[in-house]
Amino acid sequence: MKIRIDNARLLMPDLTVSEGSVLTEDGLIAAVGDIPDGECDEVIDAHRDLVMPGFNDAHTHSAMTFLRSLADDLPLDRWLHESVFPREAKLTAEDIYDLTRLAVLEYLTSGITSCFDMYFFPDAFASALTDSGFRGVFCGSVTGAPSAAEKLEQDYLRFNGKDPLISYILGFHAEYTASEELLREVSALSHKYKAPVFSHSSETRSEVEGCISRHGATPTVYLDSLGLYDNGGGGFHCVHMTDEDIGIYRSKGLFAVTNPCSNAKLASGIAPLLKMHKSGVRLAVGTDGAASNNALDMFREMYLAAVLQKILCDDAEALPAEEVLSAALSGSADAMGINSGRLEAGRNADIIMIDLDTPNMQPINSIVRNIVYSGSKTNVKMTMVGGRILYRNGEFFVGESPEKIYEKANSIANRISSQM
Amino acid sequence: MKIRIDNARLLMPDLTVSEGSVLTEDGLIAAVGDIPDGECDEVIDAHRDLVMPGFNDAHTHSAMTFLRSLADDLPLDRWLHESVFPREAKLTAEDIYDLTRLAVLEYLTSGITSCFDMYFFPDAFASALTDSGFRGVFCGSVTGAPSAAEKLEQDYLRFNGKDPLISYILGFHAEYTASEELLREVSALSHKYKAPVFSHSSETRSEVEGCISRHGATPTVYLDSLGLYDNGGGGFHCVHMTDEDIGIYRSKGLFAVTNPCSNAKLASGIAPLLKMHKSGVRLAVGTDGAASNNALDMFREMYLAAVLQKILCDDAEALPAEEVLSAALSGSADAMGINSGRLEAGRNADIIMIDLDTPNMQPINSIVRNIVYSGSKTNVKMTMVGGRILYRNGEFFVGESPEKIYEKANSIANRISSQM
Repeated sequence: MKIRIDNARLLMPDLTVSEGSVLTEDGLIAAVGDIPDGECDEVIDAHRDLVMPGFNDAHTHSAMTFLRSLADDLPLDRWLHESVFPREAKLTAEDIYDLTRLAVLEYLTSGITSCFDMYFFPDAFASALTDSGFRGVFCGSVTGAPSAAEKLEQDYLRFNGKDPLISYILGFHAEYTASEELLREVSALSHKYKAPVFSHSSETRSEVEGCISRHGATPTVYLDSLGLYDNGGGGFHCVHMTDEDIGIYRSKGLFAVTNPCSNAKLASGIAPLLKMHKSGVRLAVGTDGAASNNALDMFREMYLAAVLQKILCDDAEALPAEEVLSAALSGSADAMGINSGRLEAGRNADIIMIDLDTPNMQPINSIVRNIVYSGSKTNVKMTMVGGRILYRNGEFFVGESPEKIYEKANSIANRISSQM
Repeated sequence: MKIRIDNARLLMPDLTVSEGSVLTEDGLIAAVGDIPDGECDEVIDAHRDLVMPGFNDAHTHSAMTFLRSLADDLPLDRWLHESVFPREAKLTAEDIYDLTRLAVLEYLTSGITSCFDMYFFPDAFASALTDSGFRGVFCGSVTGAPSAAEKLEQDYLRFNGKDPLISYILGFHAEYTASEELLREVSALSHKYKAPVFSHSSETRSEVEGCISRHGATPTVYLDSLGLYDNGGGGFHCVHMTDEDIGIYRSKGLFAVTNPCSNAKLASGIAPLLKMHKSGVRLAVGTDGAASNNALDMFREMYLAAVLQKILCDDAEALPAEEVLSAALSGSADAMGINSGRLEAGRNADIIMIDLDTPNMQPINSIVRNIVYSGSKTNVKMTMVGGRILYRNGEFFVGESPEKIYEKANSIANRISSQM
């Protein structure tokens, strides 16, 4: 499959805007810029719209779509124990498949071309993605006793290298849901495969306080002491980080994956993104799940990342648009270990087209700032993953009709609610 | 002109969702619910999409669209003095007309059916709105010496009652840009016409501190002492409010118009919405101008109003979705003194249709929460103002092509930049 997009504005890896064409072939970007004519399966005229890399959603729980708008405006504890956990206990693998397909539709509308997921039933997740043509990385989400590590290793070996759209990264749910024995097993796997490890970390103040009272150290210091970060990786959320934590992230080359919407809506706080960035910590951006966000929308996520940082720092200069956009593109891709996030030959053809002929993008004083500060899902004209167009002009091409996917999601949500 | 919308979900004034039809006639809502068949100019099948009142944008500077993305990530002082003021000095009435038309397009895409504007050249503003078919209230924005009050009275009398789409409310820019003599004149006008008064108020900490050092009182206490609030009105922003200020707002029935995106992006802070609401102060929502927001998007505004309050109060229960939605509908309409914001017979036919068959609105666990927490401009299928459809399925019907409007906005932005 060979597609050429002509007459485009191009968002280059250094975030400058150039003009020219993009050629995709066999799932990869084959060329960018001045491209001689040649035979193609399709030639698209971009009419000077912007072609850029797709956003990479570096932390989500895709199948949580069924919990959207079900338990808002509740404190975290009640939200988790009264609404989320009892409902999740009723999910089947088939539910995960259907609910993940719904999330994929939403990712596509927001120009998201890959997700870093952590949830149950990785096989169902992987099938939903490959059936849709979407790219995903599954993060191991083990909890509890050390026996879980065996399954983690099996999945790690089973999912990597099986399908070019799917990969698997070692991980565990969080310090507070894992025994020290399990964490030592995960660390051993990380050393065995020289593989990075991710988990939820430092999301709430009480989580950090709990870890200090259990282990005499913050989650970052404690996990690092077990050797979990010797091969890289990082944390989801990273809201309550000490200077020592930030030092560990910098020195070990860890990624801080920020989820500003979810952290705000659950009143968890604002992550110190500027401080981490200035300290040399690499940032990535994720939406978290629809239960706590409640949208899977990278435009809103980038906006919140930028403006919340200005509030936190009491400084309108804090975290400029360029830094946030870069985190959502190459930062997230690098955290996930995928070859995406930059418009250059040899990268995955994970590409979106942004409509600039809309009121919110006019006048064109700065395309990068337009994207971060006034861009929205209305601007996403096309979303391509691995060289295949999955969304264009409001239509989906994912092998299943959206109506069918909506119907299934509603029926799952209703079934589970009726069982409560 | 008589339009009937059948087969709709209806967002009723109490924010419950009902089913039925809406009939509009002569610019007003004629009936809601079960409506017998009858002759109409147009019958629309809503296919069970949601019909609801349009959002009312209770504080904006429409023509500031030309400054979008021009000076982001700057501290307020440099932003105002280096970028905004020198550029604004070069604006002509014709520029205001063209730039306001651009803002109207953006309002329509976000389901906004009216705006409460404060800027220069009210005649150009009014023409841009009436030529587009859009509803607006102009807020007097006088500054400086008492002579400005004469013009304020003239405009107040000239604009009110002239066109059903346009009205005019007494106002001044802010305490810090007005002489006490001018404020006394405005107060006299307010008493003469028993008319409410609005202004920017308590937007930044330094503004409040400046007022205290000039007058020994906060802006609210000082302005109230001049009798400016004896006939109602309110303040734009209301970020830094003391308990005494809140007491005055409550006892005088003033509206606190919140602009959470602008306040966040300029690092001004988070308004104490929950505290004001619990104290009995009525809330309204506005986008502020595109220079500081940078979008004119009520979905993003509502989301930020809700989630920032949770951060401010360290409480995920703070300011539930229903309160925010109510502020953006009836709260804003009442602040602006327009007969909109509720789906009931006799109100202005300022109505929007929300597409529920999109991934971000599925499953349908709660329509109100979906709107506030995951809704977006992609869901706006139709925007009707005063019984006329101005936007439908991505197309504008405002008497001018969007391409022409974009072209003019770019040419104005470029001209002014080249003069700097």
